[in-house]
Amino acid sequence: MDPAVPAPVPPAFSLLPRRLGVDTHHEPVVVLRADSPVVRAEGFEAHARIEVLGESASIVATLNILSSGGLLGPDEVGLSEAAWLRLRPRPDERLRFRFAPPSDAMSHVRAKIYGKRLAEGAFEAIIGDTVAGRLSNVEIAAFLVACAAGSMNREEVTGLTRAMVHSGARMSWPHPLVVDKHCIGGLPGNRTTPIVVAIATALGLIMPKTSSRAITSPAGTADTLETITRVDLDLAAMRRVVEAEGGCMVWGGAMNMSPADDLLIRVERMLDLDSEAQLVASVLSKKAAAGSTHVVIDIPTGPSAKVRSDEQARSLLHALQASARALGLHLVGMVTDGSQPVGRGIGPALEAHDVLRVLGNHPQASADLRERALDVAAAVVELGGLVPEGASAAARELAAGVLADGRALRKFQAICEAQGAFREPGVAPFQRPVPAPCTGRVQAIDNRLLARAAKLAGAPHARTAGLLLGAHVGDRVERGQPLFELHAESQGELDYALDFVRGHPGMFHLDLEESSAARRVVR
Amino acid sequence: MDPAVPAPVPPAFSLLPRRLGVDTHHEPVVVLRADSPVVRAEGFEAHARIEVLGESASIVATLNILSSGGLLGPDEVGLSEAAWLRLRPRPDERLRFRFAPPSDAMSHVRAKIYGKRLAEGAFEAIIGDTVAGRLSNVEIAAFLVACAAGSMNREEVTGLTRAMVHSGARMSWPHPLVVDKHCIGGLPGNRTTPIVVAIATALGLIMPKTSSRAITSPAGTADTLETITRVDLDLAAMRRVVEAEGGCMVWGGAMNMSPADDLLIRVERMLDLDSEAQLVASVLSKKAAAGSTHVVIDIPTGPSAKVRSDEQARSLLHALQASARALGLHLVGMVTDGSQPVGRGIGPALEAHDVLRVLGNHPQASADLRERALDVAAAVVELGGLVPEGASAAARELAAGVLADGRALRKFQAICEAQGAFREPGVAPFQRPVPAPCTGRVQAIDNRLLARAAKLAGAPHARTAGLLLGAHVGDRVERGQPLFELHAESQGELDYALDFVRGHPGMFHLDLEESSAARRVVR
Repeated sequence: MDPAVPAPVPPAFSLLPRRLGVDTHHEPVVVLRADSPVVRAEGFEAHARIEVLGESASIVATLNILSSGGLLGPDEVGLSEAAWLRLRPRPDERLRFRFAPPSDAMSHVRAKIYGKRLAEGAFEAIIGDTVAGRLSNVEIAAFLVACAAGSMNREEVTGLTRAMVHSGARMSWPHPLVVDKHCIGGLPGNRTTPIVVAIATALGLIMPKTSSRAITSPAGTADTLETITRVDLDLAAMRRVVEAEGGCMVWGGAMNMSPADDLLIRVERMLDLDSEAQLVASVLSKKAAAGSTHVVIDIPTGPSAKVRSDEQARSLLHALQASARALGLHLVGMVTDGSQPVGRGIGPALEAHDVLRVLGNHPQASADLRERALDVAAAVVELGGLVPEGASAAARELAAGVLADGRALRKFQAICEAQGAFREPGVAPFQRPVPAPCTGRVQAIDNRLLARAAKLAGAPHARTAGLLLGAHVGDRVERGQPLFELHAESQGELDYALDFVRGHPGMFHLDLEESSAARRVVR
Repeated sequence: MDPAVPAPVPPAFSLLPRRLGVDTHHEPVVVLRADSPVVRAEGFEAHARIEVLGESASIVATLNILSSGGLLGPDEVGLSEAAWLRLRPRPDERLRFRFAPPSDAMSHVRAKIYGKRLAEGAFEAIIGDTVAGRLSNVEIAAFLVACAAGSMNREEVTGLTRAMVHSGARMSWPHPLVVDKHCIGGLPGNRTTPIVVAIATALGLIMPKTSSRAITSPAGTADTLETITRVDLDLAAMRRVVEAEGGCMVWGGAMNMSPADDLLIRVERMLDLDSEAQLVASVLSKKAAAGSTHVVIDIPTGPSAKVRSDEQARSLLHALQASARALGLHLVGMVTDGSQPVGRGIGPALEAHDVLRVLGNHPQASADLRERALDVAAAVVELGGLVPEGASAAARELAAGVLADGRALRKFQAICEAQGAFREPGVAPFQRPVPAPCTGRVQAIDNRLLARAAKLAGAPHARTAGLLLGAHVGDRVERGQPLFELHAESQGELDYALDFVRGHPGMFHLDLEESSAARRVVR
């Protein structure tokens, strides 16, 4: 409006960066002295969002003010690791500071909070700023909550998904048909992926599988696989494994595919929050970026699973299919029993042991995990065109055959070795059985409480921690017989999990009437 | 479920606190060395929420991990100011650590995100944990967003309000009738409170007024008054002022009334967010805690005010009245013109000058501010029973008389002196006129953009910063005549505001057709 107004002068003061070595996760934090001329001249206060300008890079960071103490020299600014690694200042490079420019991304977030529909460009702005580290955790939290609980329509979910795909690397494969599978978590121990990849690739399908780490669960597939092999491969290494073996099982986070996803997931973890829109965008963005063409989605459903009712499962499946269509993906879903954990282990290494027993046709392998994995594998085999459409029985026979004759195990080991290692998962140093308080039949198991107990025992960050189930729904247990064992890598975590277990007797529902009737019969 | 499980052992390791002197606002942050046995034994990772146990106090804090560098000795833990001030460890006191217990408050927040109704007990848990410093900013942000945009019904708003009242100190007065007023912000410069308090108390009403600092605006009433007098009185001092003068004008935050409010407001500021439910709870919790019985609410309404339509104003007023009734407060609302700023100044000191000119019957006093203040004062006088109900004209006459004859000014000065000071507000060292780009008539002013410019110039933290209007809607301006002046306390802030102004020509709408027609006539 006034052409005579000059461009803003560059900030007058500059400071030397000091690496504080403080890990604040992905949110860059800078510390300025309260008596610094920069603070005075720019009018900064604690928790302001400020722009830090280096010679070759700039960041937006959250400001902490050093009000006393000798942490910094008068000519210094302290940088957290996230700030340091984004700026990577040369020796003697000086940094300058100003208020962060108003963020378009946050205008869109506020519009969403107030129930407006967002176009794809709005999601591009939000996801772009997230990946560039320009949004604080508080701002990301607002975005996640605004998108939770059914506030996003199909077009918005697709727009968010596309924005997440565009924010990172995208793979393409020299094959017209690339299969994939994904399980909508929430069911402890449901670790079918390694078995399905082994079966599908042993049958000649192309399955470059990327998995995530745990969001709110005690273990993600990547956490579990990491106890057996390397999963932090880069794109080039992943490509070599897929070329050699037809498939892989790697952590998607190291791949820079949909990099926004991991940043959003970290904040979701802080809130213990999972929303349908984020779930769809998270799953499909990884699949689209991974170059998959045909995807099977497993939706475990049960009163204490992530998806609680068939209706909710169908809603999620429709949301997935609508956005998949818009992205050009073939997607089939299967709604599976989510009423109790699958297998015996809950926690990275404990689940890895379950997987290896199924692949090895071990006599004590968990039959439920084996059946579940074969169901998913059969769907992949059918969608992958190895049998005519609708020939489900033939698909299952193919899958079961390759598992029974050891080809799946050999393929699994070959993929692991191509990824850099094949090793036995460890065993936790601290273990403690939790006995049944009375004799009875297990009527129900609360997945959420079990998952909480496994997390409090240290899973997933403590790889061998978690719990090992001694009984499933329908099993009869004697008083004093272990319902499960808690595994931990430290006494503190074991004690904390035990404390929680003691406070939550609803974890296992024992049918006492039947048991006392049974006892009467025994007498 | 297993009575034989022992209580958790106390954490095995303890560390000596080191005050880092870092201001992180109200969120306590602790820094542990990555190689500390505590981190290893407890399985902590960066951004975990951990409980820090001292001898006489415990806190929940956000963990930062020191991955390198010599910030801390091997036996030390670093504490932010918020952590230090809550724990206040004795010399040589050692601190212990464990995972923060799962928070009931956050279970309620998640329920709210998913559209559940919350009972008063849930709000008590959330507000209690907020005041106790047990929720992180990320968690508070999730709560605020979950309660925004019409997701709270009347009972929930009342429940939240009660929880906020219960969280702090409550005043009572030896008078059956205690009047109060509140303006639902969003209208720059609408600083009627000091004038209304002066008029009402000069007429003998009891008006112990507490005000807030700016939420998302360039100045709150407390910010403005602080340029004239002391506003950070404690409860006892406030009581002495009211006993002596019949009223006061203090900052509510220093009073520990509804202490949750200021904590919530800080996070709202980070998000630039205002929600109806929070607004109602914020306003009414302060009024109820202040012991008010009769309250006038001013709701400025206009296309760029906080409340944009009469319909929205009525909705807000109904929400206020419903919760006020439930709390036993008499409340009347007035919907006022919010189409443009009131007075000339926008920013703490600039608005204080406007207030003093009206009180002093200065020839250049802003007529619009004077009229607006008299409207509100008349409503207070009527609600306060000084005239029969419905005798609005008589009420206004009473108010105007006491302003015209100088009694209101003398009362204002007396209250200021009782609060500890009466001084002239300062003037900003950096000023810069923003000229009209062409001749024309001012058709509309965008309050939001003006407020943004004033904030970028430094208001409210820089007390004399902001802007001074040179023209209002309907005024004719010549090309080059100042539309407004920017005031700042630093060159950096002045430049930044000018940059913003240059990028937003929509701040003033000039009616060019009329002006060129006018020019033709002049020629």
